Amino acid sequence: MQLKVQPIQIRAGRYKVVVNTGDAKELGILAGDRVQLRDHSYLTAIVEVGDMIPPGNVGVYQECCEKLGKVCPLTIDLVPTSRPDSVGFIRKFMDRQKLTQEEIYHIIQDMVRDNLTEIEMSAFVTSSYINGMTPDEVEWLTRAMIDTGEKIEFDTHPIMDKHSIGGVPGNKISLLVVPIVAANGLLIPKTSSRAITGAAGTADLMEVLAPVEFTAEEIKDITERVGGVITWGGATNIAPADDKLIRAEYPLSIDPRSQLLASIMAKKGAVGADNVVIDIPTGIGTKVPTMEDGKKLARELIELGERLGMRVECAMTYGASPVGRTVGPALEVREALKVLETMQGPNSLIEKSTGLAGILLEMGGAAVKDRGKELAMETLRSGKALKKLKEIIEAQGGNPDVTHTDIKPGEHKAELPAPADGYVIEFHNKRIVEIARLAGAPTDPGAGVWIHKKKGEIVKKGEPLITIFAEKSWKLTSALKSAETDYPLIVEGMLLEHIRSIRII
Amino acid sequence: MQLKVQPIQIRAGRYKVVVNTGDAKELGILAGDRVQLRDHSYLTAIVEVGDMIPPGNVGVYQECCEKLGKVCPLTIDLVPTSRPDSVGFIRKFMDRQKLTQEEIYHIIQDMVRDNLTEIEMSAFVTSSYINGMTPDEVEWLTRAMIDTGEKIEFDTHPIMDKHSIGGVPGNKISLLVVPIVAANGLLIPKTSSRAITGAAGTADLMEVLAPVEFTAEEIKDITERVGGVITWGGATNIAPADDKLIRAEYPLSIDPRSQLLASIMAKKGAVGADNVVIDIPTGIGTKVPTMEDGKKLARELIELGERLGMRVECAMTYGASPVGRTVGPALEVREALKVLETMQGPNSLIEKSTGLAGILLEMGGAAVKDRGKELAMETLRSGKALKKLKEIIEAQGGNPDVTHTDIKPGEHKAELPAPADGYVIEFHNKRIVEIARLAGAPTDPGAGVWIHKKKGEIVKKGEPLITIFAEKSWKLTSALKSAETDYPLIVEGMLLEHIRSIRII
Repeated sequence: MQLKVQPIQIRAGRYKVVVNTGDAKELGILAGDRVQLRDHSYLTAIVEVGDMIPPGNVGVYQECCEKLGKVCPLTIDLVPTSRPDSVGFIRKFMDRQKLTQEEIYHIIQDMVRDNLTEIEMSAFVTSSYINGMTPDEVEWLTRAMIDTGEKIEFDTHPIMDKHSIGGVPGNKISLLVVPIVAANGLLIPKTSSRAITGAAGTADLMEVLAPVEFTAEEIKDITERVGGVITWGGATNIAPADDKLIRAEYPLSIDPRSQLLASIMAKKGAVGADNVVIDIPTGIGTKVPTMEDGKKLARELIELGERLGMRVECAMTYGASPVGRTVGPALEVREALKVLETMQGPNSLIEKSTGLAGILLEMGGAAVKDRGKELAMETLRSGKALKKLKEIIEAQGGNPDVTHTDIKPGEHKAELPAPADGYVIEFHNKRIVEIARLAGAPTDPGAGVWIHKKKGEIVKKGEPLITIFAEKSWKLTSALKSAETDYPLIVEGMLLEHIRSIRII
Repeated sequence: MQLKVQPIQIRAGRYKVVVNTGDAKELGILAGDRVQLRDHSYLTAIVEVGDMIPPGNVGVYQECCEKLGKVCPLTIDLVPTSRPDSVGFIRKFMDRQKLTQEEIYHIIQDMVRDNLTEIEMSAFVTSSYINGMTPDEVEWLTRAMIDTGEKIEFDTHPIMDKHSIGGVPGNKISLLVVPIVAANGLLIPKTSSRAITGAAGTADLMEVLAPVEFTAEEIKDITERVGGVITWGGATNIAPADDKLIRAEYPLSIDPRSQLLASIMAKKGAVGADNVVIDIPTGIGTKVPTMEDGKKLARELIELGERLGMRVECAMTYGASPVGRTVGPALEVREALKVLETMQGPNSLIEKSTGLAGILLEMGGAAVKDRGKELAMETLRSGKALKKLKEIIEAQGGNPDVTHTDIKPGEHKAELPAPADGYVIEFHNKRIVEIARLAGAPTDPGAGVWIHKKKGEIVKKGEPLITIFAEKSWKLTSALKSAETDYPLIVEGMLLEHIRSIRII
């Protein structure tokens, strides 16, 4: 059917057109069906049906216009066509039939090319969540995610990498782990994420010190030059399917296990990692509530690594309290820098960072068995880690002369005082993150929470439990109001039993 | 956040706004989150994020503009708000936790109010498909679908109704069943559907004879006046959730059992039906392949009816071949009218129609047990059914003087000849429907297929198997090409065993 083109100045996120109800009936198509747009070129688009487009016209969203040529054509021929094969494969997956490697590849490829509608995407992630995937399917999903994106191929090996499952606030350890590992001659091209629902992702932290948006080629260059990078994965085209999956999962608050595994390992596989350490924070309020859950996840990650030719080791870490005493970009960077500069800082941060770095040093052959942590600690103490971080900052275009005192939190601050004498008997990670976010984190880097008292610590009435920092006073007000309404820490006058802080790693 | 309004002249199907990426970050919201629009009134809208809207602006789709007032305001305050509770209930449902009646009501209410995104809708129907629903949940779903729409309350009872599960082409029996039942003094307010993937729904058929779009109030009036109606349910606000569910299910080609049951029974419940007969076409190529499946479905429908206070009886009918010999609006109406006028016509049509009408006559007390079919046949033979149909046609605004010879199929036609002597050993319902649709059905009422030979019938080489009718010659060409490429009937020179046509009902 030849239709007059009405360009729509809106990006639909997909190749999409709008057809008048009458014309759609005539063409025998409904919303969600596909049509081929035929001009001098061909393009398959998703159909919307509506009466805002007059009969004889077709509304063409911006992506289609751009794809069709510099100027949107005046008229276009519309021919109904079948849905992509991958929609059939998703249906098969809904029916709990095992998918082949090729079928999974097609689904992921169509996802990356924006060929699937939101309804189809949601059906896939919902089915993944309910039905799960076999180990074969998870492997194929991971391979498809790697192969539909950019890959980095290093000439030198081994390549080291590190990932945290997340769920624990203040987890700034990459700022220490990456320079410790790189300072010992190993290559560690760390791509990381920005916070989606958290207060600060590793990319948000590093951005306080240097730019984090680099292409795959640049990541390779910098890593080869200085031994490591800390960049934002989203700036590359590495495993682009991951972002598409997250966009469908986030609105449903789900994180299907198969996609959790594939997402982590695809990003490691795409940078050519040989040895990977994965931090699994465990405990109430984290993504992995019990040790048993953690061990199961570790086994799955190790097995998936084997299938992909990567050596994976997992560290179960204490996650029921924040790492260190700061949450939010600037505060966390300040705390990490201070440790690098002075070895002064929270034990939880130093122990965890050197523990994980030590595992990598052993895996990469820089330390002998059981001596990795010692070497990591020595690298930190000697200032070599700080020197390496400065090299990385400089290579990424930041100021290498920065010191922790240069990093200023937001100028607006407020304290939350203890309502009584006693011990902190409950500490709610999620509330701390909510308060930091209300204060502006991660968008305002100066926003965050300084934690004075952690679980099991003693406090006197009126002493501050936390200090909230913000760049904007109205955000401070909102964060403080939330904190006062629902305390993130619970203090009781008397503890029946003194719960000693649990040793980290 | 106060933002400048940019009206978007597009209907989004929901209350939706577009926020610039930077502003969204500042507000801490992502695509699919909700915001409150605050002007002099409040409105909750779904967020899209994109860079086509400049910072400081908000793109406001048409539905929002209309809801906010006659003229879209110049600026509006945007405040992030939580997702509707029903999104949490959908998540609970994904986790296979049993939903309460109130939770199901909330989901359906938000669906009807267009408060759910496509991702959320798809997660609900996908979960329904994979996890199923308990009988309690199906009952509550049905009640919610009834209560979130319009209801008809008749002063006289009993109210009769009829439904077919569908999946068999040429199923024009409502054109006979409704007048037979109404001619015997019973009320039958039949709302029906248009074909979505079929060649002609009952509403498409009736529209050849009279208008079919009436409000619930008009349906009540006409039924009380002449005993029956045959209207398009989509014109009313009866069980509006059904249409929303179908829009999410169609793109995935799924029809979850729970929604199949609820959809049928909600429409019957909303018109206050006391006695319902349900036609379950069974056999290869139908929605219900085996007798066992059919019996299971029948039990579920009867049980759901009991829960809702409706008496339901089911008729398992032969569905592997079309009913009668015509498929497509005009052809089917012509065939049905001819039977009403002359009692001349295919046995499959007469037997099935009087069989189902007979069940209703017995249920409604118009006939004694086991004599319903006889009375139905007598009503047909005596011309009372024809007289009643004419009354209904007139009451709906059509021409009551119409005869079957007035109904003309499309002027373009072509025959598909038998390639050899022999019996028809295979007959593909789905191919017949595809060919009828390619010829233009149901949009072009004159388009369709006349079936000369059915399964088990003998044919000589060169004799026509089917005749294809179309209103437009290019559609005829396309349908004929498809038919020739992949024959809908298979003729073999010899049958190993003569399969006698199975007796209907």
